[in-house]
Amino acid sequence: MTPTCPIPDRITDRIELAHGSGGSMTSRLIERIFRPRFGNSLLDRGLDSAILPPSGERMAFTTDTFVVSPLFFPGGNIGDLAVNGTVNDLLSVGATPRYISVGFVIEEGLPIADLKQIADSMAAAAREAEVEIVTGDTKVVEHGKCDGIYINTAGIGILPPSLDLDPDNIRPDDVIIITGPIASHGMAVMSQREQLGFSSAIESDTASLGDIVHALLSVAPGLRVLRDPTRGGLAGTLCEFAAASGVNIEIVEDAIPINPRVSSACELLGLDPLHVANEGIMVAVVPPAEAEAALAAVRRSAHGADGAIIGKACAPDPEGGRVWLRLPLGNRRLIEPLAGDQLPRIC
Amino acid sequence: MTPTCPIPDRITDRIELAHGSGGSMTSRLIERIFRPRFGNSLLDRGLDSAILPPSGERMAFTTDTFVVSPLFFPGGNIGDLAVNGTVNDLLSVGATPRYISVGFVIEEGLPIADLKQIADSMAAAAREAEVEIVTGDTKVVEHGKCDGIYINTAGIGILPPSLDLDPDNIRPDDVIIITGPIASHGMAVMSQREQLGFSSAIESDTASLGDIVHALLSVAPGLRVLRDPTRGGLAGTLCEFAAASGVNIEIVEDAIPINPRVSSACELLGLDPLHVANEGIMVAVVPPAEAEAALAAVRRSAHGADGAIIGKACAPDPEGGRVWLRLPLGNRRLIEPLAGDQLPRIC
Repeated sequence: MTPTCPIPDRITDRIELAHGSGGSMTSRLIERIFRPRFGNSLLDRGLDSAILPPSGERMAFTTDTFVVSPLFFPGGNIGDLAVNGTVNDLLSVGATPRYISVGFVIEEGLPIADLKQIADSMAAAAREAEVEIVTGDTKVVEHGKCDGIYINTAGIGILPPSLDLDPDNIRPDDVIIITGPIASHGMAVMSQREQLGFSSAIESDTASLGDIVHALLSVAPGLRVLRDPTRGGLAGTLCEFAAASGVNIEIVEDAIPINPRVSSACELLGLDPLHVANEGIMVAVVPPAEAEAALAAVRRSAHGADGAIIGKACAPDPEGGRVWLRLPLGNRRLIEPLAGDQLPRIC
Repeated sequence: MTPTCPIPDRITDRIELAHGSGGSMTSRLIERIFRPRFGNSLLDRGLDSAILPPSGERMAFTTDTFVVSPLFFPGGNIGDLAVNGTVNDLLSVGATPRYISVGFVIEEGLPIADLKQIADSMAAAAREAEVEIVTGDTKVVEHGKCDGIYINTAGIGILPPSLDLDPDNIRPDDVIIITGPIASHGMAVMSQREQLGFSSAIESDTASLGDIVHALLSVAPGLRVLRDPTRGGLAGTLCEFAAASGVNIEIVEDAIPINPRVSSACELLGLDPLHVANEGIMVAVVPPAEAEAALAAVRRSAHGADGAIIGKACAPDPEGGRVWLRLPLGNRRLIEPLAGDQLPRIC
């Protein structure tokens, strides 16, 4: 056996491969950057797994990896995006988000200052969403083997008894509500990436939507389904709803909220805002009798001021449910999910 | 709004950016590759979060991202490694692993055949460990922005009441057991990566260790702590134990099982096998009265035939617990955790 030569405890301002070694440099990274920001009684035990108290309820469990480029964009960065995205996936099934895990893959050379800023945003997003980061993992790959940082978050939430949000539940005449303007996230990232002139004017909508979801659950006991329309945009989510339920869905173009600057940017770039990713809105489907109360509850909630009723479920379609967009002149066009990638690396 | 031009449903033998779009090509990838291999009643609902039944018990929750290079190595690949690694992290706190999430980051251009082989290995490892893959996420990044594929797995396990495995529990005279030979995983990956001549002779030990852990829990009710010594190796794990408990640990070089070919390879490359990663062994610390029964239980278990008692906990050290290696001639040397990375990208 050969004696090993320990690397001295030096100060560095960039991530090095040794920060992912599992040795003392990894420990220092955790102690100096992550624990001060994320620390809580569950994380601080530092075991291979976090120990969570029994809940006695059903749980929701989800995962998402974030590879957005660039890492920083107007309105957020990969850190708050990663926390909010997983929180919203838990909320989408009606769960109350509780615990988050974080898996970092960091590129050698990433400025420590960037990592601190990302971790700060994650901590703030976790506080805002009332979730705890309870377990984590850090890997470092050589320069050129990732794109700054990739972040996986998995999440656990607690699910109220007998709640069953599922696109299968959608029935004819159900009402489609959107909780805010569409396409802001995708266009914010796109404009930052391409250094377009309007970048300062468009901000990502990244946000956790616990307030809206809890409001909806309290006023709309018949709530059919919720979904945050991220990759694939509003069109992708509605097409999934139609396909799963077998009923057609019709939405009205003029009723869909969109920031005029976002709309102009989409037009300029030849993008359909219905296909552009969102990170801070929900699509909710409710029975007609609960629609007005649901909309009012959304509009009273954080991030819900621009909520709107945008359409409704129609008759079942023997060929499978489809999505139609009613245009201002009264005609309509078929909306289809994108096959490929309109905007890669958006989340 | 501009009409979008859907990409035709074409057959492809390599991953494309569009497979990560969240659109129909992502759906096809899931339907054709992941669902046939991973499918179960929880995953198949296809919601944003999996819905897990209530357990009423405490839970363990862990995460790990795998960036091993190369993706395929003797004895395994990144797929079974990712499942086994997270399963073992749950077992390390004494939990029974139940549910796994999978987050893929795939490089554009990865052969679909490789992805299938990796998914096959994940499915086999999950069956072996009796866990279900219940939720997942797939991202695709441009060629050159990752190294084939990175896989995050997060896991949930169920924890027996009042079990509390923690290095704090270690007391003087406690016995250190290792469940199998050390350094096999690191040297298997290293030899494959460097195309060394002995590559065919060294296999990774990647395996899930439920059988061993359940056997230990049943015969050694006083079990203090368990840990799978991955990155940082046996030395890293024992140094953590000593630091956390404040007692010195002494291990005996001649007692530590190691495959002679692994030992020779370490010597050739100037690596200390105590610092080389393992992926299929556990270190267990038990009270002296339970040591013989624990060792016998390990040796009867799958992957435990070469289990051995390798040392013991000694007196508390006023300067903080340290780890000593007793050498064949009777003298001893201090073992320290690596600061940096002896073998990067090993898991």
